[in-house]
Amino acid sequence: MGTLWAVGIGPGGAEFLTGQAREALDRAEVLCGYTVYVELVAPLFPGKETYTTPMRQELERCRWALEKAQSGKEVAFLCSGDAGVYGMAGLLLQLAPQYPGVEVQVVPGVTAALSGGAVLGAPLGHDFCVVSLSDLLTPWEAIEKRLRCAAAGDFCLCLYNPSSRKRAGHLKRACGILLEAGKSPQTVCGWVRNIGREGQSARVLSLQELREAELDMFTTVFIGSSATREIAGKMVTPRGYEAKCGW
Amino acid sequence: MGTLWAVGIGPGGAEFLTGQAREALDRAEVLCGYTVYVELVAPLFPGKETYTTPMRQELERCRWALEKAQSGKEVAFLCSGDAGVYGMAGLLLQLAPQYPGVEVQVVPGVTAALSGGAVLGAPLGHDFCVVSLSDLLTPWEAIEKRLRCAAAGDFCLCLYNPSSRKRAGHLKRACGILLEAGKSPQTVCGWVRNIGREGQSARVLSLQELREAELDMFTTVFIGSSATREIAGKMVTPRGYEAKCGW
Repeated sequence: MGTLWAVGIGPGGAEFLTGQAREALDRAEVLCGYTVYVELVAPLFPGKETYTTPMRQELERCRWALEKAQSGKEVAFLCSGDAGVYGMAGLLLQLAPQYPGVEVQVVPGVTAALSGGAVLGAPLGHDFCVVSLSDLLTPWEAIEKRLRCAAAGDFCLCLYNPSSRKRAGHLKRACGILLEAGKSPQTVCGWVRNIGREGQSARVLSLQELREAELDMFTTVFIGSSATREIAGKMVTPRGYEAKCGW
Repeated sequence: MGTLWAVGIGPGGAEFLTGQAREALDRAEVLCGYTVYVELVAPLFPGKETYTTPMRQELERCRWALEKAQSGKEVAFLCSGDAGVYGMAGLLLQLAPQYPGVEVQVVPGVTAALSGGAVLGAPLGHDFCVVSLSDLLTPWEAIEKRLRCAAAGDFCLCLYNPSSRKRAGHLKRACGILLEAGKSPQTVCGWVRNIGREGQSARVLSLQELREAELDMFTTVFIGSSATREIAGKMVTPRGYEAKCGW
């Protein structure tokens, strides 16, 4: 029986891989995942069997990997960012009991909330929420409720999947809900596109401006708490040392 | 003028460093940080000047690093986990305008929500909140409000700083608030102690049991949403493929 590593590869470039992720990819005989991720990473680990499927064939891809591991192969299942945060580690662990003898090991990685946050500065320096705006698997009402609760708690927010061709307008709706729930139009926000990849771009802007922004599915969005500030072009949520130390 | 890298080193062991973090630590002439973190990492990058201060001298440590960078040195400021999530990146960016010419670059890392989550399985597989129970810099009322809002939104929760000698009882109070706010006593929870270090331990348990647990400050706590399940000893929050695919 083989091991199946669910590996978080970070935002893309080799420089975001942890040593632990490298080791798993190195040991694996098979690399499996969504086509784009495998293409990013496979050239660094040549000579391995690869298996890729397009988006939205997650169940089939997970079953393939579990079967492969059951047949005795060492398999690495590539996940963008972290393996657990909207990644496939959960689905693999849900299915694993149907494949006796396969051991699923989760290897964490730098999720977009962290890699995108670093580009903007330190937007998640205090308590925060991560919410996906994709309603493929989650009813929009549940997303809306979470946005209202995040606003009520004055959390910083990181939004994944802010839009897609089928979800045009989701970000605009989300911003509207947050404003309605009491967030100021001047709340400091930011977005990062193509994190850690060619053509990376980012902007710090107000919630009011974010509402009108046209962003694509390769973008991660950050919405500040009431304490978040723009400092020299960076988005920063202070933890509160300035109050404690009395500047 | 030098560069100041705020580097997220992950939970401790060298295997959690990203390539980007390694490169910054390699290029730096000075390693600076809380004593424990510097001791974990400095042996991997020998022959460098080091500067350490005990806990709670964050402001002084940041100023030292900024001055050093202003004098022309390349400085790496070590942060446990991620540089931005309750890390020093925010404070460094807040202070940086007082040190003209110093460029602060943030290098993200694997924060405990991710590294601890991987040990437990995939507890943060759907929308989640991260909340620190430390009231050193945040009034307890604000923490309590965020816990209530996280419960109202049926978020998964990751709790940092669940207790310390001065904060005994905070976790118990937090669990009480979550129960009062409507979370079921049977909610699947978990904790991980000494993530990625010697003597790592973890347990999956109910919210009711968590309320009675005695945990120390080296522990990270996970509280499930209503969808979180224990599967073969792992803590898993499904994203919803099982519903979509009709198992």
